[in-house]
Amino acid sequence: MPQFLNATDADFEARFAALLTMKREDAPDVDEAVAAIIADVRARGDAAICDLTSRFDRLDLTPETMRFSADEIADYAGQVSAEDRAALELAAARIRAYHDRQMPRDESWVDETGATLGWRWTPVSAAGLYVPGGLASYPSSVLMNAVPARVAGVERLVMCVPTPDGVVNPLVLLAAQISGVTEIYRIGGAQAVAAMAYGTDTIAPVDKITGPGNAFVAAAKRRVFGRVGIDMIAGPSEILVIADAQNDPDWIAVDLLSQAEHDESAQSILITDDAAFGAAVARAVDKRLETLERRAIAGASWRDFGAVVVVRDLAQAAELSNRIAPEHLELAVADPDALAAKITHAGAIFLGQWTPEAIGDYIGGPNHVLPTARSARFSSGLSVMDFIKRTTMARMTPESLHAIGPAAVRLATSESLEAHGLSVQARLDRLNR
Amino acid sequence: MPQFLNATDADFEARFAALLTMKREDAPDVDEAVAAIIADVRARGDAAICDLTSRFDRLDLTPETMRFSADEIADYAGQVSAEDRAALELAAARIRAYHDRQMPRDESWVDETGATLGWRWTPVSAAGLYVPGGLASYPSSVLMNAVPARVAGVERLVMCVPTPDGVVNPLVLLAAQISGVTEIYRIGGAQAVAAMAYGTDTIAPVDKITGPGNAFVAAAKRRVFGRVGIDMIAGPSEILVIADAQNDPDWIAVDLLSQAEHDESAQSILITDDAAFGAAVARAVDKRLETLERRAIAGASWRDFGAVVVVRDLAQAAELSNRIAPEHLELAVADPDALAAKITHAGAIFLGQWTPEAIGDYIGGPNHVLPTARSARFSSGLSVMDFIKRTTMARMTPESLHAIGPAAVRLATSESLEAHGLSVQARLDRLNR
Repeated sequence: MPQFLNATDADFEARFAALLTMKREDAPDVDEAVAAIIADVRARGDAAICDLTSRFDRLDLTPETMRFSADEIADYAGQVSAEDRAALELAAARIRAYHDRQMPRDESWVDETGATLGWRWTPVSAAGLYVPGGLASYPSSVLMNAVPARVAGVERLVMCVPTPDGVVNPLVLLAAQISGVTEIYRIGGAQAVAAMAYGTDTIAPVDKITGPGNAFVAAAKRRVFGRVGIDMIAGPSEILVIADAQNDPDWIAVDLLSQAEHDESAQSILITDDAAFGAAVARAVDKRLETLERRAIAGASWRDFGAVVVVRDLAQAAELSNRIAPEHLELAVADPDALAAKITHAGAIFLGQWTPEAIGDYIGGPNHVLPTARSARFSSGLSVMDFIKRTTMARMTPESLHAIGPAAVRLATSESLEAHGLSVQARLDRLNR
Repeated sequence: MPQFLNATDADFEARFAALLTMKREDAPDVDEAVAAIIADVRARGDAAICDLTSRFDRLDLTPETMRFSADEIADYAGQVSAEDRAALELAAARIRAYHDRQMPRDESWVDETGATLGWRWTPVSAAGLYVPGGLASYPSSVLMNAVPARVAGVERLVMCVPTPDGVVNPLVLLAAQISGVTEIYRIGGAQAVAAMAYGTDTIAPVDKITGPGNAFVAAAKRRVFGRVGIDMIAGPSEILVIADAQNDPDWIAVDLLSQAEHDESAQSILITDDAAFGAAVARAVDKRLETLERRAIAGASWRDFGAVVVVRDLAQAAELSNRIAPEHLELAVADPDALAAKITHAGAIFLGQWTPEAIGDYIGGPNHVLPTARSARFSSGLSVMDFIKRTTMARMTPESLHAIGPAAVRLATSESLEAHGLSVQARLDRLNR
């Protein structure tokens, strides 16, 4: 049974606060093991990669077979059905169209002193995309990471995907091909992250590493951060649905289960202004759970972390949502735009009852890599911004330096940074001669 | 003596590669001490803050005296000379004008299927700014962190600045007042970071923490990351000057020293296409070092980490600069725009010989918080983007779901995520009835 909370209950605030701070993840501490793996890859390069792949993935590689050849990629991609290929291509096209609009413009202007100011955006030269092997090897994640990188202008786009026992997911290779990945290696784990961060004889280093992974991958990303950029370290998935009584309880039930089925640590919450509707959704969840393929996972998530919260009105729903700062927020209400206007913190919003969250996981266009664990209070989902960086530009004229230089000298002096002041003063002296 | 490298030397590539990977920082390992401080603040709140402030800053506080009152701020701000106040106000106005232009726009459009897509930007609700005490207590850093936060729309802007032995820097309080800081606490170190991240009875928690600090502050920021957002962990400052022979060697010398004086670990590099000019600059540096107030620091930095690199032409200078990915890049050449067009990685570019880097530290308008240690390959300086976050939006119509929903169902099935597919299929079934 999930939790049932009602805003009119005396203990509501305490229980809601407990829901907010609930610990859902018990990540194993693999940091020491990961440190050893990274050190091994830095010391022995390709040889370490081959040994570790043999140990963890039961796969014997040589530096020559580490990388998928163009022929191999074409062969695997050719195994995908025409229907699956068409679906992937439609998804890639829609994700590309959405992310194309994210590219910011360079700016340059002349201020009132005659100084030229502005900034310029340039892409990261080389990015590395980690893709998990086995069950969590999702072609949709390949698109969501690789397409924004290519839209941003990243020239070299490396992908590492482990193939335990040599098992390859053809859809993952096809997704990489469609989205413009330029190199694919059949390696995984902390060793793949280390190879991309530090390079080996076979794998040139990259500047930024993104993509999901298990505890080893997450710990390795944390450790190489600074040496390279990384995206967020994602926690378990979450969905918050705000729904009024004018919904089919079964639709809302499957929406809640679509996150619950990811992971036993996932969290699905319904907020509604109608207690009877909330109870009907809970019944519909139970009914769906009877037959769902992943009912063991989804059922555990719903039982341990699920919640139905009854509020007095939708304004209160928005307030509670802003405290949760959900990764995914569905607004299944009569006027979703009005409710969305009250939302200040959310990774992605799905408006109206015809927009199930899963549409955004695959094909809507927006990115499905989103801030979890309340981090939507301060961070955003993956975008082209993760693959570009800003260089600020300034050009003084003698006149503009004359106008603002003395203030810089004064501030440098107040901070006891004499050479800072001298570098401006030496030029002002020339003007005043 | 700094290093002298010439691109025509046989060992040039090896020496340049060594320059790139030179270890300049030997940060003390304070992580365990910091973990204990954070745990203490989480457990005992205000009482821990008062005890730690007494121990580290030799200052007795109570929860009532932790925060500067409005009267105290006004009193200290009133001690600043009219000239210093005018300089700070000019700097704040210019920084504000520059950062105003960084605010991105919300977007919304209807695609060919009738789906409404877009995104919306919202500010972080509460940000915390750390300002070091003592010698490194820079009013310019207050402006560079606080102004972008306020431009972004951050409502609650907290500042923590330690006041060892009760010594207050009036310029720092004035800078906070000018830039719109809403709360100021006289606490510092890892305890201040912990208080801002987790909150105490007196200090409400924030969502994002920015600002420079010593090894304790840096370790604390790393530890609270995830609970709150943080800005980058900055390394020692760096400057790269690319200069042709048409420059006054003394100007370039003071520019190099303006970063060297920050820190013995700072690094100043000159790249020039004229060996005689390079030698002249090195002589000018030595001459300036004879009298510079901070000659001990600047001299050690120049001796240990400084370098003069002679190249065959400016195209080669750009190539080397892109491998360095400098924090600050001065282009003191005849056609700086042409050279800038070849630069792919740099935190900030200062164009032409009338633009000393120090103008950007104070008053140019761009931010002086910039990526160090080659991280300009993948990251940007501080901006309004650090204080806002994007919520992606999608709204399907029955028609748009009919158009793209089947592809989502197919992809969900290929990933064995049945409930994802069901959440779309349940709606498609209604349409097909």
